[in-house]
Amino acid sequence: MGMKTSEANLIRELRAATSKAGSKSGIVLGVGDDAALFAPRLGHETILTCDWFLEDTHFLRRLHPPDAVGWKSLARAVSDIAAMGGQPRCFLLSFALPKDLTGRWLDQFLSGLRRASRKLDCPLAGGDTTLQEKVLINITVVGEVRQNRAILRSRAKPGDLIYVSGLLGEADFGLRLLRGKARISKSHPALKKHLYPEPRLALAQWLADQRLPTAMMDLSDGLSSDLPRLCEASRVGATIEAAKIPKASVPKRNRSARSWAVSHSQSDLALNLALNGGDDYELLFTVSPARARRLPASHQGVPLTAIGTIQRTRSILLAEPDSVVKPLAQAGWDPFR
Amino acid sequence: MGMKTSEANLIRELRAATSKAGSKSGIVLGVGDDAALFAPRLGHETILTCDWFLEDTHFLRRLHPPDAVGWKSLARAVSDIAAMGGQPRCFLLSFALPKDLTGRWLDQFLSGLRRASRKLDCPLAGGDTTLQEKVLINITVVGEVRQNRAILRSRAKPGDLIYVSGLLGEADFGLRLLRGKARISKSHPALKKHLYPEPRLALAQWLADQRLPTAMMDLSDGLSSDLPRLCEASRVGATIEAAKIPKASVPKRNRSARSWAVSHSQSDLALNLALNGGDDYELLFTVSPARARRLPASHQGVPLTAIGTIQRTRSILLAEPDSVVKPLAQAGWDPFR
Repeated sequence: MGMKTSEANLIRELRAATSKAGSKSGIVLGVGDDAALFAPRLGHETILTCDWFLEDTHFLRRLHPPDAVGWKSLARAVSDIAAMGGQPRCFLLSFALPKDLTGRWLDQFLSGLRRASRKLDCPLAGGDTTLQEKVLINITVVGEVRQNRAILRSRAKPGDLIYVSGLLGEADFGLRLLRGKARISKSHPALKKHLYPEPRLALAQWLADQRLPTAMMDLSDGLSSDLPRLCEASRVGATIEAAKIPKASVPKRNRSARSWAVSHSQSDLALNLALNGGDDYELLFTVSPARARRLPASHQGVPLTAIGTIQRTRSILLAEPDSVVKPLAQAGWDPFR
Repeated sequence: MGMKTSEANLIRELRAATSKAGSKSGIVLGVGDDAALFAPRLGHETILTCDWFLEDTHFLRRLHPPDAVGWKSLARAVSDIAAMGGQPRCFLLSFALPKDLTGRWLDQFLSGLRRASRKLDCPLAGGDTTLQEKVLINITVVGEVRQNRAILRSRAKPGDLIYVSGLLGEADFGLRLLRGKARISKSHPALKKHLYPEPRLALAQWLADQRLPTAMMDLSDGLSSDLPRLCEASRVGATIEAAKIPKASVPKRNRSARSWAVSHSQSDLALNLALNGGDDYELLFTVSPARARRLPASHQGVPLTAIGTIQRTRSILLAEPDSVVKPLAQAGWDPFR
């Protein structure tokens, strides 16, 4: 890109950076015309989703490496395709950036985007670019799922078991590590999860193929905000058990010994992160008791954990050890709060 | 909307405002799940396009009525579907707005968006919302076109005649009227074209059905910027004649007589607007000389005008009366300039 900043040049750069990913994507006509053309697969429905990724709202330029911005902007949008039990096919990138970022920052952004595009088998089909004072990203992902096989949020039934994949709160803990300026390795799992989340595509497609979930969604804003959405769509309630929620390990630096130890307040933090931390992109799904027996404890190394039960009564309750069952406060991420 | 500003409320409002438009849209699952589901029509390809519509870049809050912002944000994105010879099926809205606009401004914006959605038979299928200091809009439109029948930019051949629909420069003149604070009627054609453009869907589909155009695109940034794009994609050049370009009528207020008269400088202005004015959303297309005989002078009241010829030599030339033929300067809208 260098010093050439005309729109035509940026479009050429984007095309070169992403067009080679994926071959069976169905893109008949890619970047460069008025619109892209996509050949849908017979017997499939098209999944459509779009996601904002905005500087100062969803990422901070001084904190987040540009390649992580590129990776995450696509990965989080693809997570919505996974949540339907589908496969990503291609994406559109709407991109606005300040003039002074068209050099090195853009190169690294495109490098992260390209890596995600290849890893998720989801090539660029088109987009729109312009100049702005801040980086604005909007990504539309087009996916596919076999007809009538999409897994909705709205089909959970009383008695269904509630499951989550992975460890919850890990991405939010990664963000805290990043903000805390602690000298941490780039490969720390929590940091990696915050910067380079991997949507649970393989797991979601396996679950959909096995027809196991009655309802499914991805956890983007935090369990305490997302579980009520699934319950509202299904017109049901839920009880979850704090002790059962798979939590990120939250070590604490002991200053004197320079070692890591877990204190009581740390377990509070782990639960808080697991309930309210955003950006995990794990799956939240419900399974009937009869089918739950067929669910393994993990899938390709990703743990699958039952954390509670769907209830007829439309409240969301949290059971804590040595405590009464109480309503779960919605404290996940909401830009309008 | 009123005072309730949570994301869930805004989503409900959007759903109520737009979900009733269109019935044969193919939306299997609309707003409210992780993603939308769309049933593609057999024997068709899917057209995908996205468009920014940003405060202070594409519209000004103090100048543009909120219902025009709503109308135009969808209409201009649908214009890209028309340019492929296709039909719009549904759209995704990514929307960010300041907290203080969630009342009356939002209501009027949604009213304009709803009118466009109904008029263009293009219902809302999904979206993403957040809060920002400025209004940010990104719209993805999903359209369809019969397999192998999309009209690309890249198939113009030397000798083809170059056509445009409508009058060029009208929308830019409308913007000048709006900026000039002249007391002008809301129904002035130039103002109407600037605020409430109507994509040439019927014309484009008729042209595609008749297999008349070899190449086609919509005029969004101005003829002097868009014609070179069509030529570059087709690896050809073009000569256009200034006198043949259908120009918006640009009246000038005569101060003494308080009447409108056309002066020499006005005809310069009209040509300048026709070459470089953006936002017209007219069609630019090429037709082989053999088929051009089948093209009427107008379609449903929209004039169709031959303005020049595609050339083998890859330069874009403008022939003006009483002047030498000279290269056409690209002076249309480019955010990177």
